[in-house]
Amino acid sequence: MTEETPVAVETQESITDALARGKLKRVRRILRELSPGETAELLEQLDEEQQQTVWDQIGDLEEPAILALLEPALAERLQANSEENLFDGELDDDPESEVSPIAVVREALEAGKFKKALIIFGRLHASQAAALLESLPQGERSSIWERLDSGRIGQILVHLREEVAASLALELSDAELLAAARELDLDDLVDLIQALPFGPGRQLLLSVDVKKRQQLADMLSYPEDSAGGLMNIDHISVRADVKVGSVLRYLRLLEDLPDHTDKLMVVDRENRYQGVLRLSRLVTSMADDLVLDVMDAEFRALDVLMTSQEVARQFEDLDMLSAAVVSEDGTLLGRITVDDVMDSIRDDSERAIMGMAGLDDEADMFAPVLTSARRRSVWLGCNLITAFLAASVIGQFQGALEQIVALAVLMPVVASMGGIAGSQTLTLVIRGLALGQVDTGNVKALLVKELGIGSLNGVLWAVLVAAVAILWFGSLGIGWVIGLAILINLICAVLAGLLIPLVLRRFGIDPALAGSMVLMAVTDVVGFSSFLGLATLFLI
Amino acid sequence: MTEETPVAVETQESITDALARGKLKRVRRILRELSPGETAELLEQLDEEQQQTVWDQIGDLEEPAILALLEPALAERLQANSEENLFDGELDDDPESEVSPIAVVREALEAGKFKKALIIFGRLHASQAAALLESLPQGERSSIWERLDSGRIGQILVHLREEVAASLALELSDAELLAAARELDLDDLVDLIQALPFGPGRQLLLSVDVKKRQQLADMLSYPEDSAGGLMNIDHISVRADVKVGSVLRYLRLLEDLPDHTDKLMVVDRENRYQGVLRLSRLVTSMADDLVLDVMDAEFRALDVLMTSQEVARQFEDLDMLSAAVVSEDGTLLGRITVDDVMDSIRDDSERAIMGMAGLDDEADMFAPVLTSARRRSVWLGCNLITAFLAASVIGQFQGALEQIVALAVLMPVVASMGGIAGSQTLTLVIRGLALGQVDTGNVKALLVKELGIGSLNGVLWAVLVAAVAILWFGSLGIGWVIGLAILINLICAVLAGLLIPLVLRRFGIDPALAGSMVLMAVTDVVGFSSFLGLATLFLI
Repeated sequence: MTEETPVAVETQESITDALARGKLKRVRRILRELSPGETAELLEQLDEEQQQTVWDQIGDLEEPAILALLEPALAERLQANSEENLFDGELDDDPESEVSPIAVVREALEAGKFKKALIIFGRLHASQAAALLESLPQGERSSIWERLDSGRIGQILVHLREEVAASLALELSDAELLAAARELDLDDLVDLIQALPFGPGRQLLLSVDVKKRQQLADMLSYPEDSAGGLMNIDHISVRADVKVGSVLRYLRLLEDLPDHTDKLMVVDRENRYQGVLRLSRLVTSMADDLVLDVMDAEFRALDVLMTSQEVARQFEDLDMLSAAVVSEDGTLLGRITVDDVMDSIRDDSERAIMGMAGLDDEADMFAPVLTSARRRSVWLGCNLITAFLAASVIGQFQGALEQIVALAVLMPVVASMGGIAGSQTLTLVIRGLALGQVDTGNVKALLVKELGIGSLNGVLWAVLVAAVAILWFGSLGIGWVIGLAILINLICAVLAGLLIPLVLRRFGIDPALAGSMVLMAVTDVVGFSSFLGLATLFLI
Repeated sequence: MTEETPVAVETQESITDALARGKLKRVRRILRELSPGETAELLEQLDEEQQQTVWDQIGDLEEPAILALLEPALAERLQANSEENLFDGELDDDPESEVSPIAVVREALEAGKFKKALIIFGRLHASQAAALLESLPQGERSSIWERLDSGRIGQILVHLREEVAASLALELSDAELLAAARELDLDDLVDLIQALPFGPGRQLLLSVDVKKRQQLADMLSYPEDSAGGLMNIDHISVRADVKVGSVLRYLRLLEDLPDHTDKLMVVDRENRYQGVLRLSRLVTSMADDLVLDVMDAEFRALDVLMTSQEVARQFEDLDMLSAAVVSEDGTLLGRITVDDVMDSIRDDSERAIMGMAGLDDEADMFAPVLTSARRRSVWLGCNLITAFLAASVIGQFQGALEQIVALAVLMPVVASMGGIAGSQTLTLVIRGLALGQVDTGNVKALLVKELGIGSLNGVLWAVLVAAVAILWFGSLGIGWVIGLAILINLICAVLAGLLIPLVLRRFGIDPALAGSMVLMAVTDVVGFSSFLGLATLFLI
């Protein structure tokens, strides 16, 4: 079909049919197959209401070409309409405004104003667009995704959580995916390939030219959470024996420096790292100073195999904006910039918080129910084991429970107080371990202190709970037993809160993930058995 | 006393006495009062072992002056000893080494090798030294603190948690505190004043010169967690109508640019913000380009009252290294650099994780036991209220519990499964709220999805737990009742996990803090009452 061919009658019929039945998704699918000329012709054959509805399905990328081919009067009316009606005060630039962009986009989609949704996405930065896409249910997400500006989808992909990125990348055609990848920096491309399933990832790798592919393969060979995984290779390097004037001339030839260039890397003839030349020093130097005299040779480079946690700590300790990454023999490999470090800090903290509830931070909030349910059931299953462990402890004391029903009423109080006291110590120790502020060097001192806290709070709450129990059930014995049980459980809880993370770590398990569940098992078992055990001994 | 005066006999006696009794702290206190000449003379009158012990108490700052005054043979021996013995392979630069600096410092203090501990601190960056200080029990911390290089204590104070900073600042004399403050950037000084109690803070404020005091007072007037609280006023501003060559000449006059200068701020005659001139652009421009032509006028400044969370999000979305801060009328007030943003992100995530356990992230890990116990008891008290709420629910069903003891055994299983399922949804929603990815725009879609997950997992675990219960207690009825109770509790739990954070937020309460405790109350109450209620209905 060329632009001159009239729109096939079937096309026109199927559009009006889809419009009549409110099937806007079908309308958009048909429109995608049409040339601007055909769309323009089609628009002119519709009534006014239909015209507006069809127009709302057209992205702002196709708009100019179609407008140019329309009758001027119609073009003007459509444009006027969209300017006026799309945003009546919503989403203005006022930061105080309470309008939720999620609601605006979803209402626009619901009302068939597809163009409006696209315009909102067009106004956002890639990371904001990614966050907004993630906030949409999967169907709506896809319908936006298939029409987003192809020049931006690469950047948006990079900012999406892995699961969302993988599923949206698979919705692209091979050609679209390759086009998106072409817009990316190498380090972002590496991240994208790592997020994709093997097939499309490999295809992406094979699609880049040979020189770049070698670099990509090198970068992919480093662990994702290492300095090598965080680095990019867009640094500018200069030699120490040249003059500042020559460096400035060289930079002027480049015209545009890579983003986040705050320093140049100084290397020797063999590309071995010698130090850095800060731009802030460069601009205050004289043209005939030697680089050697104004460079900072003390500025340490990062080893390519350093973990990303260590990299983050170095950036924070030294307040760095960027740092060189070198191989074991000192060869300059690339650089890490602070924006990527910041993302990695954010990712780590998100992973820790989500991990405590047994959730995966890279998972899609709107993944299919079955997928999400299956994922979450793992954690529920682990909990069931500890819950039955606690139940079996209670089961040992059925005799006592049959005789004194008050025990059944009060036993959750003992377990839950221990759980809270233990989780406080656990949280403190997990943070200390992560920051390197708790280790064998001070664990004994911490133990003494935590035992003190556990005992003090144990006595305090033992007295209080005992008093309540005595008043409630009118039995002095129950008061003694529950008070003693609470004291025992609180002391065991702080001990467990201190030791569990240390032991888990020794076995290579992340204490932030498994710590609270193991702790809960301990405080439940100790709480139930001490309370019911003491009751069996003294009250029966 | 002048350097020529011989050391008073009492001084010498009290040193040998303190040495004999192993009171090294007293030795150090006496040494602090002595001049280098007196110390040298004293050293020469001691036996070899005493000499070494006294020498180990002397910081490396006083060392050179004393060494110069000693007999050459003695000086050489002492120096040789310290070089050799202080570090036998510990703490080498090998990053793989497993030696804990905490342990090394504490062992050195224990063994009376005070100098060694100080040398370790001397090798660390301010932030690392602060972290290490925080890892020491309070007594050891103080004995290090009183001898740290006075040029560094300001920087170290800034990196300490508030409570630790306040207590260590109070150990300084007024003169020491003022000297420390003089070394600080204004933004760090503001942080320090905010961390200190009112008295010393005010004194610090009054100690700076009038011009600086006005700036300080201005900066103190902004909330700590706002753009104004994060900003510094060390930016360099230029006018748009000058030439690049003049800017470069001006910068060369400054010689040294403030840390983290990646861009200059462009202002008009009234100091109103016009845009930024990046150094990376500056170095690629021609000397007779106008600033106007090479500046970036699109680069948005931050409003001084923006919250620090918003600032962090802007920095992340736009990958910024620094940004201008402006007042409402567009006047340039200062700039925020990415290192401070990174600290604020780290602080926020730490506050969230600690807050979930009812802990204060600025508190001292080694605060006195009584202080810590009192702080933690608040959270335990809140928990006790919810625990008694759950107990009172159980109390309603004492009749059922008396007749069927299996109910008491199994009831914690129902409550705990609900707690886990609810906390998964809660965590997901709290993260979504924090990132702006959950709001009224998609809460219904999320509700549908979470109810689906809750129902699916509810059915799965209901069947499984019912089967175990039937096998355990040989009663089909108990199986039905516990299965149904688990299904009900899991569905209520995801509902509560979704709604509680939304409701708390509406009332201005941070859902990350109170969310899990409220959730636990709901899942306990629903779990116990549904299980025991169904049992009363069907089994009795």
